[in-house]
Amino acid sequence: MEGPSRGELEAVALRAGMLALARFRRVAAERKADHTLVTDADREVERHVVGELVARFPDVGVLGEEGTVREGTVREGRGALRIVIDPIDGTAAFVAGLPLWAVCIGVLRGAEPVAGVVHLPALDETYSAGDGVAWWNGRPLERLGGEQGEGDRFLLAHAETHLRHRITYPGKIRSLGSTAYHVVLVARGAAEAALLGHAHLWDLAGPGAILGAVGGRYEYLSGGRVDLGALIDGRRAPDYILAGSAEALAHLRRLIGARA
Amino acid sequence: MEGPSRGELEAVALRAGMLALARFRRVAAERKADHTLVTDADREVERHVVGELVARFPDVGVLGEEGTVREGTVREGRGALRIVIDPIDGTAAFVAGLPLWAVCIGVLRGAEPVAGVVHLPALDETYSAGDGVAWWNGRPLERLGGEQGEGDRFLLAHAETHLRHRITYPGKIRSLGSTAYHVVLVARGAAEAALLGHAHLWDLAGPGAILGAVGGRYEYLSGGRVDLGALIDGRRAPDYILAGSAEALAHLRRLIGARA
Repeated sequence: MEGPSRGELEAVALRAGMLALARFRRVAAERKADHTLVTDADREVERHVVGELVARFPDVGVLGEEGTVREGTVREGRGALRIVIDPIDGTAAFVAGLPLWAVCIGVLRGAEPVAGVVHLPALDETYSAGDGVAWWNGRPLERLGGEQGEGDRFLLAHAETHLRHRITYPGKIRSLGSTAYHVVLVARGAAEAALLGHAHLWDLAGPGAILGAVGGRYEYLSGGRVDLGALIDGRRAPDYILAGSAEALAHLRRLIGARA
Repeated sequence: MEGPSRGELEAVALRAGMLALARFRRVAAERKADHTLVTDADREVERHVVGELVARFPDVGVLGEEGTVREGTVREGRGALRIVIDPIDGTAAFVAGLPLWAVCIGVLRGAEPVAGVVHLPALDETYSAGDGVAWWNGRPLERLGGEQGEGDRFLLAHAETHLRHRITYPGKIRSLGSTAYHVVLVARGAAEAALLGHAHLWDLAGPGAILGAVGGRYEYLSGGRVDLGALIDGRRAPDYILAGSAEALAHLRRLIGARA
C-alpha cells in the first residue's frame, strides 16, 4: 500500500495520544456550530497527526474532524487513498474527565477502510488493522463468530439512544462514551454488537478497518450496508448504525424499535 | 474513629488493586447462585483485604460480598462499626476485559457510611472519604451544587435499566459497568446523577461515604432515603436507587418512569 502501514499508524497515534493525555482534565471546551464540543486538544492533536502524515505521504488525501481537507493524488486499484482522522473520538467524555476517548486514524481506499488505528491513551489500549489482520495491544484478534465467552453478553449503545429507540435486548447495554471504542470492543469479541449514533466518517473509518479485518461490518439500523464514500463530504450518517457480525446484526435488528 | 482512617483505607485498596490488576484479563469466571459472575480474583482480593483489616482492627465487624461475615464488638456513638468490602465492583466488566471496575471498602457506623475508598486500578483513579471530606487522586472534592461544568450534562444508569424503566432525560445516559464508579463520578460533579440497579450494601457503602461527604445522598427511585442498615443481611436493595444532590434527584425522578 502507498498509504501508511499499520505500524506507522500506531506510531503516529501513540505520539498523538501522549499530546492529548498531557491536556486531559486540563483543557477548556467550546461548542461547535453543531453544538458538539471541541477543545484545544482536539485541534492540536489533529494538527500534529496531519503534520506527521503529510510529511511522510505528501500525495495522499487527508480529512480530519476539526477541519483538515486536503485532496490527494494517490490512487490504488479501485480508488483514491485517503487518510481520515478523528483526533479525539469521545470529546464529551474527554471534557467530562472520563478516560473513555480515542485517537482514531483510518485509511480508505475509495470507500473501503483498509487500515486503521484506535488508540485509547488513558486506558493504555491500542487496536489496529492492516493487510486484513487486526491487533489489540500486540495480540492478533480472532475472527468474529467463534466461541462465546463465559461472561455476560452485552450491547454497546450511543448515549442518546433512549431518546429515539426502545430496545428489548435481554442483556446489559453499556454506553462508554466513544464510538470508536464501542466498535473495537465488538471487534475484540467483548461486546455482541454496537448501536452507533450521530456518527461521521472520522468516527467510522479507523475502527471500521479493525472491524472489517475480523469479519464484522457496519449496517444502517434501517437496513443496508454503510457506504463510507457517501460520508466523505463530512455529513453525519443519516441513521443509527449497527456494528458487528452479520448474524449478530440480523438478530439485534429485531430487538430495536422506535420509541413510543 | 476506632475503625480505619481514610489513609489506611486507601493503602489497603491500592495493594488490593495491584492483586486484582495482576489477574485482569487472565482469570476464568463462574456463576454464583444469583447468576452473577465471580472470579478467583474477587475471592483473592476479598481474602487479602479482610486479612489486612482484621489484623489491624481485630474487634471491628467485617462484611464482604464474597461471603465474609465477621461480627465485631466495637461501637462508636450511635452504632456498631462495620467494614464493608466489595473486592471487585463491576465483576462483569472485569470478566469482559473492560477497565471499569473498582475495589470498594466502606466503614459504617450503624447504618451511616463514615469513611470509604473506591479505587479503580486499571484507570489509576482513587476516591476516598473520611472525617466528612472526600478526595479524588489527592485533590479534595467540592460540595455538589456549585457551578455547572462546561461539558455535556449526563446521567449514569445501570446496564439493565432499559428492561425496567423508560427515561426521558434529555441528555446523554452512560453506563460504565461499575455502580461504585457511577457514584463517585456523581460525587466528583462529572455526572448529574446515577440510577443504580441491583445494588447491595457492599456496592453502596464505600462510595456512599464519598457521596455523603460532598452533600449527596441515596434515595430509592420510588421515594425515601436508603437505609443501609436494612441491607446488612446482604439482601439486594428492593428498588433502583438514585444517587446525587437532593435537587438533582427531585428533578430526575420526574424523568424516569416504568417501561410501557
